[in-house]
Amino acid sequence: MTPATSLFTPVEADLQILADNLKQLVGNRHPILFAAAEHLFGAGGKRIRPAIVLLISRATMLEQEITQRHRRLAEITEMIHTASLVHDDVVDESQMRRGVATVHSLFGNRIAVLAGDFLFAQSSWYLANLNNLEVVKLLSEVIMDLATGEIQQGMNRFDSGLAIETYLQKSYYKTASLIANSAKAAGLLSDVSPEIAQHLYNYGRNVGLAFQIVDDILDFTSTTDTLGKPAGSDLKSGNLTAPVLFALEEKPYLEVLIERQFAQSQDLEQALALIQDSQGIQQARELAAHHAKLAAEDIAILPPSESRQALIDITEYVLSRLY
Amino acid sequence: MTPATSLFTPVEADLQILADNLKQLVGNRHPILFAAAEHLFGAGGKRIRPAIVLLISRATMLEQEITQRHRRLAEITEMIHTASLVHDDVVDESQMRRGVATVHSLFGNRIAVLAGDFLFAQSSWYLANLNNLEVVKLLSEVIMDLATGEIQQGMNRFDSGLAIETYLQKSYYKTASLIANSAKAAGLLSDVSPEIAQHLYNYGRNVGLAFQIVDDILDFTSTTDTLGKPAGSDLKSGNLTAPVLFALEEKPYLEVLIERQFAQSQDLEQALALIQDSQGIQQARELAAHHAKLAAEDIAILPPSESRQALIDITEYVLSRLY
Repeated sequence: MTPATSLFTPVEADLQILADNLKQLVGNRHPILFAAAEHLFGAGGKRIRPAIVLLISRATMLEQEITQRHRRLAEITEMIHTASLVHDDVVDESQMRRGVATVHSLFGNRIAVLAGDFLFAQSSWYLANLNNLEVVKLLSEVIMDLATGEIQQGMNRFDSGLAIETYLQKSYYKTASLIANSAKAAGLLSDVSPEIAQHLYNYGRNVGLAFQIVDDILDFTSTTDTLGKPAGSDLKSGNLTAPVLFALEEKPYLEVLIERQFAQSQDLEQALALIQDSQGIQQARELAAHHAKLAAEDIAILPPSESRQALIDITEYVLSRLY
Repeated sequence: MTPATSLFTPVEADLQILADNLKQLVGNRHPILFAAAEHLFGAGGKRIRPAIVLLISRATMLEQEITQRHRRLAEITEMIHTASLVHDDVVDESQMRRGVATVHSLFGNRIAVLAGDFLFAQSSWYLANLNNLEVVKLLSEVIMDLATGEIQQGMNRFDSGLAIETYLQKSYYKTASLIANSAKAAGLLSDVSPEIAQHLYNYGRNVGLAFQIVDDILDFTSTTDTLGKPAGSDLKSGNLTAPVLFALEEKPYLEVLIERQFAQSQDLEQALALIQDSQGIQQARELAAHHAKLAAEDIAILPPSESRQALIDITEYVLSRLY
């Protein structure tokens, strides 16, 4: 058992039910999407998003069994995440994700756009049928945020003047919003108080930000093999993340290389060397650790339970991926 | 003033407000989408969907002014329609729509996928904020149906055994569902009885089917110039519509041509000639007229008003496009 999945022990059986449901939901209705569904909901995914929803569901229901609506919310969360990945891969023209070929590279743009639309549509429909207007609003906000984040990332490419706050906002839109809003929604389905709901939102937001910052660090410190995509690919495409933005404060020449979009040979190699030689990666680690610590504090509001402990352990696991 | 717009006299001012709002909503938030928004919500569109929503709003509110929520519903309807057009154009690789270049041909797949996602996301968000769970469910159903219809159309390409019922079901998913469910939703926002709500749904369903059948006939009877896209392009791409399905009953050789996907030179020309020589177009006209008549009967349940008369006139206008 890998460290990631052993964290999820309290909801292991729930995650198995979820995986089976997701494959059926998408594949059974549309044979043309069956292959894509197998591919999307098969191996590879860490399922950290539905795991957090299920753990929060268990940690807020305690003595009682979690409901079908909690399970459905976890499924919706993974559907929205998967839909956005499929469309992002079309937009970014990515060939690989998590070490496997992307839907659009395997099945073409046609199926990728349709599969993403279908998943978004199905998640909207399931969402409406949870019969909870506040939950509908929270998750609709997420779908807006995902589109906004992808557009913002596109607009800020190769902008060496990007503020770290703007980077964090984009990271919120693209990653943390889904975790934050679905964490809060899980609490609302358990009828928690508004105060606890706010803490759950903050937990999700901080875990999400830490998760994204760590991902962005790994793009510089991991091998292509571990990443399942070429290392340094964010920088190459002009997506400037925390390590780069911190390094820019120390290494003014980095700005020159970025502004000319690595047009000359050796530009990219030189930029990567400047980042490695700076405190950028260390400062990004500290930023991730800061958000992970805040997340652990947020979740402490819940009464102690095996599931609450797993939610705390997740904040450490997120950072442990760096070592 | 064209026949189409003079029909909309009772809601002409409303439609102007709607057009301005839509351009602002999309363009202001995302400069990168501004050009796409101008293009999408500028000239060209007939705005028949929001016009029907606004006319039903006025016909069910009568003495009272229509509300902001009625207006917002009309905007959501046009946003969902536009989002689906943008993604359909990516999926179908269309170069032209309504005589103007498509978003993906002008701005590339990247912007087209993002613009469509953003419009779907924004419509989900506005929808949730109408604070009416039943309306949210109706319109979420539409988003599912649009994806299902596009997938079904893809699966049934060049299937000469396609039943007319399957064609009508696909036409419901792709066209009539949005009109039917938004017509019903407009009534619900005016607190109509369940019985009237059902009649409004049926009106929208029948108008939508008539509209789609007429569109499919025009693909055979219009010039490329009038259509704003190449004539006969449905048949060429294997999208078998009412005139073809009826013609297949009379002209068995048409099946051979379709099944070999017009592989030999002159196949397409020969197929078009067989259809022209059959009763297919006339039978399709009768089917459209049948649904238009049902729609006029459905809407008669409302008390007489200028707006109700416009809704009746629309059922005749839909057919008049054929002459």
